[in-house]
Amino acid sequence: MKLCTIDDGTRDGRLCVASRDGARLAAASGIAKTLQAALDDWDRCLPLLHALAELLDAGTADAGTADAIPVHTVRFRSPLPRAYGWIDGSAYINHIVLVRKARGAEPPETLETDPLVYQGGSDTFLGPKDEIPLPNPAWGCDFESEVAVITGDVPLGVTPAEATPHIRLLLIVNDVSLRNLIPAELAKGFGFFVSKPSSAFAPFAVTPDELGGHWRDGRVHLPLRTWLNGELFGDPDAGAEMHFSFPQLIAHCATSRALSAGTIIGSGTVSNRDRARGSSCLAERRMIEIIDGGAATTPFLQHGDRVRIAMALPEQDPSGDGIFGVIEQVVVPAKRGAP
Amino acid sequence: MKLCTIDDGTRDGRLCVASRDGARLAAASGIAKTLQAALDDWDRCLPLLHALAELLDAGTADAGTADAIPVHTVRFRSPLPRAYGWIDGSAYINHIVLVRKARGAEPPETLETDPLVYQGGSDTFLGPKDEIPLPNPAWGCDFESEVAVITGDVPLGVTPAEATPHIRLLLIVNDVSLRNLIPAELAKGFGFFVSKPSSAFAPFAVTPDELGGHWRDGRVHLPLRTWLNGELFGDPDAGAEMHFSFPQLIAHCATSRALSAGTIIGSGTVSNRDRARGSSCLAERRMIEIIDGGAATTPFLQHGDRVRIAMALPEQDPSGDGIFGVIEQVVVPAKRGAP
Repeated sequence: MKLCTIDDGTRDGRLCVASRDGARLAAASGIAKTLQAALDDWDRCLPLLHALAELLDAGTADAGTADAIPVHTVRFRSPLPRAYGWIDGSAYINHIVLVRKARGAEPPETLETDPLVYQGGSDTFLGPKDEIPLPNPAWGCDFESEVAVITGDVPLGVTPAEATPHIRLLLIVNDVSLRNLIPAELAKGFGFFVSKPSSAFAPFAVTPDELGGHWRDGRVHLPLRTWLNGELFGDPDAGAEMHFSFPQLIAHCATSRALSAGTIIGSGTVSNRDRARGSSCLAERRMIEIIDGGAATTPFLQHGDRVRIAMALPEQDPSGDGIFGVIEQVVVPAKRGAP
Repeated sequence: MKLCTIDDGTRDGRLCVASRDGARLAAASGIAKTLQAALDDWDRCLPLLHALAELLDAGTADAGTADAIPVHTVRFRSPLPRAYGWIDGSAYINHIVLVRKARGAEPPETLETDPLVYQGGSDTFLGPKDEIPLPNPAWGCDFESEVAVITGDVPLGVTPAEATPHIRLLLIVNDVSLRNLIPAELAKGFGFFVSKPSSAFAPFAVTPDELGGHWRDGRVHLPLRTWLNGELFGDPDAGAEMHFSFPQLIAHCATSRALSAGTIIGSGTVSNRDRARGSSCLAERRMIEIIDGGAATTPFLQHGDRVRIAMALPEQDPSGDGIFGVIEQVVVPAKRGAP
């Protein structure tokens, strides 16, 4: 099942169920107004949402509870336009090693035994086609293409095995980063704060069964594709090289406190050791350029640059909208005082 | 005006207005069901909430829109039981210097020019009298008594002068910390994550005018009192030594992204250079013991320890419930799997 949130002028948007092909939507207002409301009351809502999805796929959603909405008429928000928690991991060892090398830092000693996660801002997510406001191109704006999960309520101290059933939905995300602000910010010791502006998510939050056998071992075994200004920039597989699985990340995040329904947990930038798969961020490519030729030649994002991120099943068009719909964002000058 | 959230079995509780003395409440359901809903629609709600507060103080709130609820019959939640953002600063230089010394770290070079803030977990706040679940006392559990503000929508790039009108409400908070987990967590470079379990807030979120002239220069010029197991542990003034004001903290937080209504921003542990004022956390006292006698003798919190935090106006009983009501928490063993 695919869920999404469309813009209706409210802060949290309106929850819709999407047809399997993503072409038609049905408002789920009779079940839950917003995705957060559905997550808050999941056991009641899940079967009703499934039933609505079946009606929609059978072409009869306009009879009774909901009207089918043509997808081209709507503006998508991120599935959760704002969330109570956004915890981003960094589970691809190849990415950590390259990016730390890029800023002259060592990987942590516990790289392979203790997951890296940070708490990110979750109050102002961008929509999948919203512009990325960049006040200053010298800040070194970068995209980071990632996979993420939305959890239900997760009790304090769950084990990875216990965490799996708390995974409600899968997402893909552009975790925008300001690379040139990171070193000074991390040197202060309190994390990334100003170097991580608002992230954007693709339109569809999908139940794990939508991925069939490609969702296994708590990982998404499919390539995540990123295009920069229309050129394929990377298509690394999100599965095998994800060192910590999502259940392991969730268990780590619940070490010292419970997590509430609607918490989003990210994989970190998807990255493969095989250089032929490209990269999911500019920082990696720049580091490879430094290793190979002594200097980075690919610039960070400039005003006007376009980033596109999508993930397709093997039977789908690899350059199409895929499972989650697309993230497609242009970097623009930020107007001071913009909301 | 004082606002609070009472437990009604829902995730977000029910918004109430409190009488000035904090003894009687009136449900604000006819205006906004929850505090977040009021913050989302503040311009409409503020005059209505003020009018309800006036009726309540005049003793006539039971006529018409709401029933007066005796305060002893309710269980308070934190004013926002869950929030879209909790950004905690560290604005008291004396605290930073002492606590960094305690863990053998240097204060950052930009200590007095660039605010320290981290993004904290905001999805599972404890109530003001909720127990603090501590799975392992060896983690070094500590309280941190702080002042905080709730903002409205804050645009990207606001200046400190522009930030002031975006302050909606003031709070006090116990930012629970796990001191012995902090060094290893910070060494990983991603911030405090597992070393910061759920925080708790005092019952009343108050408009700045409730503090009269004690709210000035974007700071709260009143002592914040902390008791440990019934003994006064510290009463430092929260005003003069707050190096960065709340408007400065807000402007810093909005450097690279907008903030949405209901974002909570904390001052960091209130701390004065004058040792006679005591401390707002155990780590400071332990460091003073090390400086004076070579070893820390005050242990971190053990199961059964009781922490009490309150802030009173000069004309109020200094050991009473004061302006914000009290935080009063007992540390207990954590049941694995507890919600």
